[in-house]
Amino acid sequence: MSGSASLSAVTGLPVVAMVGGGQLARMTHQAAIALGQSLRVLSAGPEESAALVTADVRIGDHGDLEALRELVDGATVLTFDHEHVPTEHLRALELAGHRVAPGPAALVHAQDKLVLRAALAGAGEPQPPWARVTGADDVADFAVRHGWPVILKTPRGGYDGKGVFVVEDAAAAAELVERHGPLLAEQKVPMRRELSAQVARSPFGQVAVWPVVETVQRDGVCAEVLAPAPGLSEELATAAQELAVRIADRLGVVGMLAVELFETADGVLVNELAMRPHNSGHWTIEGARTSQFEQHLRAVLDYPLGSTAMTAPVVVMANVLGGAASSPDWTGPGLDERIHHLMAHWPDVKLHWYGKTQRAGRKLGHLTALGDDVTEVRARAVAAARYLADGVVDPAFAFAHDPEH
Amino acid sequence: MSGSASLSAVTGLPVVAMVGGGQLARMTHQAAIALGQSLRVLSAGPEESAALVTADVRIGDHGDLEALRELVDGATVLTFDHEHVPTEHLRALELAGHRVAPGPAALVHAQDKLVLRAALAGAGEPQPPWARVTGADDVADFAVRHGWPVILKTPRGGYDGKGVFVVEDAAAAAELVERHGPLLAEQKVPMRRELSAQVARSPFGQVAVWPVVETVQRDGVCAEVLAPAPGLSEELATAAQELAVRIADRLGVVGMLAVELFETADGVLVNELAMRPHNSGHWTIEGARTSQFEQHLRAVLDYPLGSTAMTAPVVVMANVLGGAASSPDWTGPGLDERIHHLMAHWPDVKLHWYGKTQRAGRKLGHLTALGDDVTEVRARAVAAARYLADGVVDPAFAFAHDPEH
Repeated sequence: MSGSASLSAVTGLPVVAMVGGGQLARMTHQAAIALGQSLRVLSAGPEESAALVTADVRIGDHGDLEALRELVDGATVLTFDHEHVPTEHLRALELAGHRVAPGPAALVHAQDKLVLRAALAGAGEPQPPWARVTGADDVADFAVRHGWPVILKTPRGGYDGKGVFVVEDAAAAAELVERHGPLLAEQKVPMRRELSAQVARSPFGQVAVWPVVETVQRDGVCAEVLAPAPGLSEELATAAQELAVRIADRLGVVGMLAVELFETADGVLVNELAMRPHNSGHWTIEGARTSQFEQHLRAVLDYPLGSTAMTAPVVVMANVLGGAASSPDWTGPGLDERIHHLMAHWPDVKLHWYGKTQRAGRKLGHLTALGDDVTEVRARAVAAARYLADGVVDPAFAFAHDPEH
Repeated sequence: MSGSASLSAVTGLPVVAMVGGGQLARMTHQAAIALGQSLRVLSAGPEESAALVTADVRIGDHGDLEALRELVDGATVLTFDHEHVPTEHLRALELAGHRVAPGPAALVHAQDKLVLRAALAGAGEPQPPWARVTGADDVADFAVRHGWPVILKTPRGGYDGKGVFVVEDAAAAAELVERHGPLLAEQKVPMRRELSAQVARSPFGQVAVWPVVETVQRDGVCAEVLAPAPGLSEELATAAQELAVRIADRLGVVGMLAVELFETADGVLVNELAMRPHNSGHWTIEGARTSQFEQHLRAVLDYPLGSTAMTAPVVVMANVLGGAASSPDWTGPGLDERIHHLMAHWPDVKLHWYGKTQRAGRKLGHLTALGDDVTEVRARAVAAARYLADGVVDPAFAFAHDPEH
């Protein structure tokens, strides 16, 4: 493999370069340390989440081919904490002999929703009814077959609910197509809930799957993840895992793949893909024998994959989104004081704070709780996250105990 | 607290500075990342274990007061990955208003074995018979009361068996006192095994203890740690934990304290102390809800302490000491290839590689295995460590399986 030519002179081990300095790179670096690695990061600025904690930071833009070339120089493999690197740049790096994981031919399915829909259709995989629409007439035709409202999505660049529109009539659709160009139209499928099936795949073709989880969204943003998905039948769980493995294999994914799913009365439908560590897998840091971050590194380095066994019967992750306590008008306890109270009250809830500037709605950190009963574990994780984000004390978790526990 | 004056301008959180760039600082940084921290490290060189992975590295000597002053400037608290900082420097930093955890008055008991023995004697805590000896006559007197051989220890600077001598007669003792000056003489107590009791203590006075572990030494170096100590009675385990808490309280320790113990027919005797994360606590990374590294940070930051509950019934840590495969003459598989095989064969053994230059006898990394049966878990951890260190495949773990598992 080409990697053998680029072992670190200091450690004698391969070097992983990651595009993006967000919390995914930050947490990947944590995992890298255990493997004898030190993640090399391309960060948009010196105060990004990962740039604050890694030794080898390059400041630059992910759209700048020269910055990418400098990043991969001497690295064994290039990988990503987001999907925004242009495909043509990745092709150029591959042509120059660099290993890119996942490669551009796979990654495009996480970058472009129309490409994904076409690929899944070709493979006969379950997904919502969809069409590429270039005008209001297309959308109206689609609605004749699948009803209003219609979901319209920008094929590229959307995340956390951005680039997703629910339209009730042709006029609204016309305006969106006018503004954004060709869009993906999807039926608003009647769903029970959202699930996520994560799989890691190595270049060797080894795959590892975790239990399928339920993702709870609020305003299009992941708020909670329940592992395993409560009440999911073994049959449907296995079907979702097999679907994720088939997609990873067919697309030739290397690294982590999260398959976001809608659960309907008839089974699961693919919503979208992420080819990197994903918010739906943060629970694995404490909740599985091998975290998604370690597994991503193992996969892109072509190391054998680790055990995905859970460490507790129930694991719940709650995101801490910038809330009341992030407002400039906030007069309650500051962040450090809130962390103090959090730790006093929930000595077994695990904190992951990303070091970012606090801003409303921003993913600032997450909390993980483990236990036996999903109602109890979820209540604990959510109350803790709510306290950290909004400074609100849930009455069910009133601070009645001795702070020392 | 003085710390509130020195929150990080970027994260709004306190800043921890650590003296020493070894694997303890490296693993503390891993834990720091989750808490929104980025450890600031004073490292002897840029290729030290922690310097390779941390963003804020100062290169300097731990004996240089100016380097220490620069290190603590703007930091909330100063702590340690080793015990080698001179007491007078720490006193000077305290006088200048800096928080030092543990403080010099506590730390000296981990730095100077004679100071420790006197303090334990004053507190009536169990320890081996001992004396300060300044000549061969003193040693001979000691031997009259406690028999030959006598253990002689340099009061300061010893670690991993260095600075410890077993002498059989007065002539050998004379030579050592001549060379080293005043020594600590100890009876070679008839012991069953060595134990370690770890406790964290915050300035607030909160304490947290983990289960007492057995430490298996080879040539004076920790080779394995078995958690909890197999077959240890609840009575003796509790006694050891209470002893550790009493010592932490009495000495005013802030941060982690490891109390290394001899188990004898009559109970436990204190061997020595470490006031920092310690090799006997590496198992807590995966094996306890809160690791010793996170707990050390929580304690020195005066955060409430985390749960010390175990995550599995049995956890075994095996050190990887530089062995045959670290020799310049080694012609077997290189480190990267050995890691590859290790992961293929033991997908549930957790690797911690420190990124250091390989050298015979050096602590290069450690492995952690979890399970239900101590014989099985220990065999797994030891076989994996032996393979990584020496390239030796234990017949009981022959690579008979499919490498993909």
